[in-house]
Amino acid sequence: MSPSDLKRKGETEAAPALPLPAPAKPAPSGPTRVVLASEVAAAFINDLKKAVSEKKTAPLLVGFLANNDPAAKKYAEWTGKTCQDAGFRFELRECEKQELEDKLFEANKDAKVNGIMIYYPVFGGTQDSYLQNSVSIQKDVEGLCHTYRYNMYHNVRFLDESSKFKCIIPCTPLAVIKILEHIGVYNKIMHEGNRLYGQTITVVNRSEVVGRPLAALLANDGAKVYSADEFGMVEFHRGSGIQLKKHEVFETKTTLEEALKASDVVITGVPSDKYKVDTALLKDGVVAVNFSTSKNFKDDIRQKAAIFVPSVGKVTVAMLLRNLVRLEEYQEAKVV
Amino acid sequence: MSPSDLKRKGETEAAPALPLPAPAKPAPSGPTRVVLASEVAAAFINDLKKAVSEKKTAPLLVGFLANNDPAAKKYAEWTGKTCQDAGFRFELRECEKQELEDKLFEANKDAKVNGIMIYYPVFGGTQDSYLQNSVSIQKDVEGLCHTYRYNMYHNVRFLDESSKFKCIIPCTPLAVIKILEHIGVYNKIMHEGNRLYGQTITVVNRSEVVGRPLAALLANDGAKVYSADEFGMVEFHRGSGIQLKKHEVFETKTTLEEALKASDVVITGVPSDKYKVDTALLKDGVVAVNFSTSKNFKDDIRQKAAIFVPSVGKVTVAMLLRNLVRLEEYQEAKVV
Repeated sequence: MSPSDLKRKGETEAAPALPLPAPAKPAPSGPTRVVLASEVAAAFINDLKKAVSEKKTAPLLVGFLANNDPAAKKYAEWTGKTCQDAGFRFELRECEKQELEDKLFEANKDAKVNGIMIYYPVFGGTQDSYLQNSVSIQKDVEGLCHTYRYNMYHNVRFLDESSKFKCIIPCTPLAVIKILEHIGVYNKIMHEGNRLYGQTITVVNRSEVVGRPLAALLANDGAKVYSADEFGMVEFHRGSGIQLKKHEVFETKTTLEEALKASDVVITGVPSDKYKVDTALLKDGVVAVNFSTSKNFKDDIRQKAAIFVPSVGKVTVAMLLRNLVRLEEYQEAKVV
Repeated sequence: MSPSDLKRKGETEAAPALPLPAPAKPAPSGPTRVVLASEVAAAFINDLKKAVSEKKTAPLLVGFLANNDPAAKKYAEWTGKTCQDAGFRFELRECEKQELEDKLFEANKDAKVNGIMIYYPVFGGTQDSYLQNSVSIQKDVEGLCHTYRYNMYHNVRFLDESSKFKCIIPCTPLAVIKILEHIGVYNKIMHEGNRLYGQTITVVNRSEVVGRPLAALLANDGAKVYSADEFGMVEFHRGSGIQLKKHEVFETKTTLEEALKASDVVITGVPSDKYKVDTALLKDGVVAVNFSTSKNFKDDIRQKAAIFVPSVGKVTVAMLLRNLVRLEEYQEAKVV
């Protein structure tokens, strides 16, 4: 692999993992079980429909688009369609960059708005971090404000002391977790929080919106995680015998090649059509998950992987709506 | 390890894996989930009770004891007790070695007898193989006659062409399989027959009654299996990309130490209190299963394994009765 292909995504990168349509061609004769995001999303969407049908008013999600990015616009339209199908209300509010902050504060204060998301990048760089932290914690469906991030990195799973209200987790990392649960990588017989103990996982992407939080979540659940980007490799784990309460980040001399050879699960999110994982490096029977809109695995992964998940987008949108339902309940209960 | 500690069990060894009582001391504070055989057996026993309660007559299992072995006698008593608890009928028929064959043929012909087992060794060596093949295929609850063995090794899963009647599998290997299913090592999202694809498993024991059939069953289900005894190491698997329809046995230069280091699951059955697996060699988060009546893992396995199964005996007896129920149905349907 060329390190320059591993783009580090900044804190303000574009919305991750566009919901792509399921690949049309049927699985070839290899032993690989191809699991589509739509299969995983279906149960969540059904639960969401049921939850909405029991409410007096459908929760309202507001999306702010201020970047004229056609990909973001497409993502927004797709979110709107999924909202409509599942019975939620969605309003896309387009505006100029300079107007965004004022409009955001209006929405923060408006009791009729239950969830807010912003299509990034707006300004790019740290100014977008400022925007992320400007979304009310009560309405932050993307889970990108500092409190939710802090709790996630510190393995704090609830907002309240009685462990009733779960923290909001960023949608794409959460989607990957839910996919790994669905496909049996999480072992349900083990205690919650330890269910990845024994799994070695490589995540190729260490962006602030997906790769880094995902590595932290996986390590908090007991995995040994190799996290790769073009600046190199680090390990996230809870130490030998998962003795630590939360993950720590360790320097490593392990190369990406060595990490891929050792991994039970390989998760990719490199936003480039040029980047492809070398199938020959992977373990026979690996679990391969791609959350990039680009295809980061070659076609021959279907003869080498036990399970292959080509995209995650539909689950990401389901997680967005799941976060919305939670936040609406927290608003009712005045949790935060 | 000392190779001399790895006793090769002959085709005629004593009944495997006595049902030991669950260890009394509670699991220490490590991350390990200790799974007792009683926990796995419970659901099977409930199903068996239900099956028996729906029958006009409780199936009758006959056990032949001709070796004056106190351990075999204890196992026989324990089988009798489990039969009684679950609603089955059990008759222990004690006799002299030289009388056994005649008494066996009587039981083969007696329509009131639904299942037959023999407590081995009787004569030892190949004369006991002759006895194993003398048990009627219609009543062989232990699955030790040639037809069942042949089908198992050749990955033939049904007795009939319409795939309605499953082959009988030897009880202890089957018990280990059911335990691995219960604890999530078998991945249910994958196609049946491929559910161990991606798993590397070491089995320390290559006896004809447990270790070799177990390695074959695991490899037939997609695992890469290292099989160890004091004569050395061999690999059982279906090749790269599990392309073969049934397992093959491959020569290997991999040492037991290397195999243990590479294994996701380590299964032991060494009938010696002296033999202990060196915990330091195992992967952090390994799955450890012991089917020996001796403790083949050290106490510190409870700080290194994700899941530890200290014994399998209660599941073995449940499988014996499950085979009995099947055979009784096959007798009704005149399958074989």
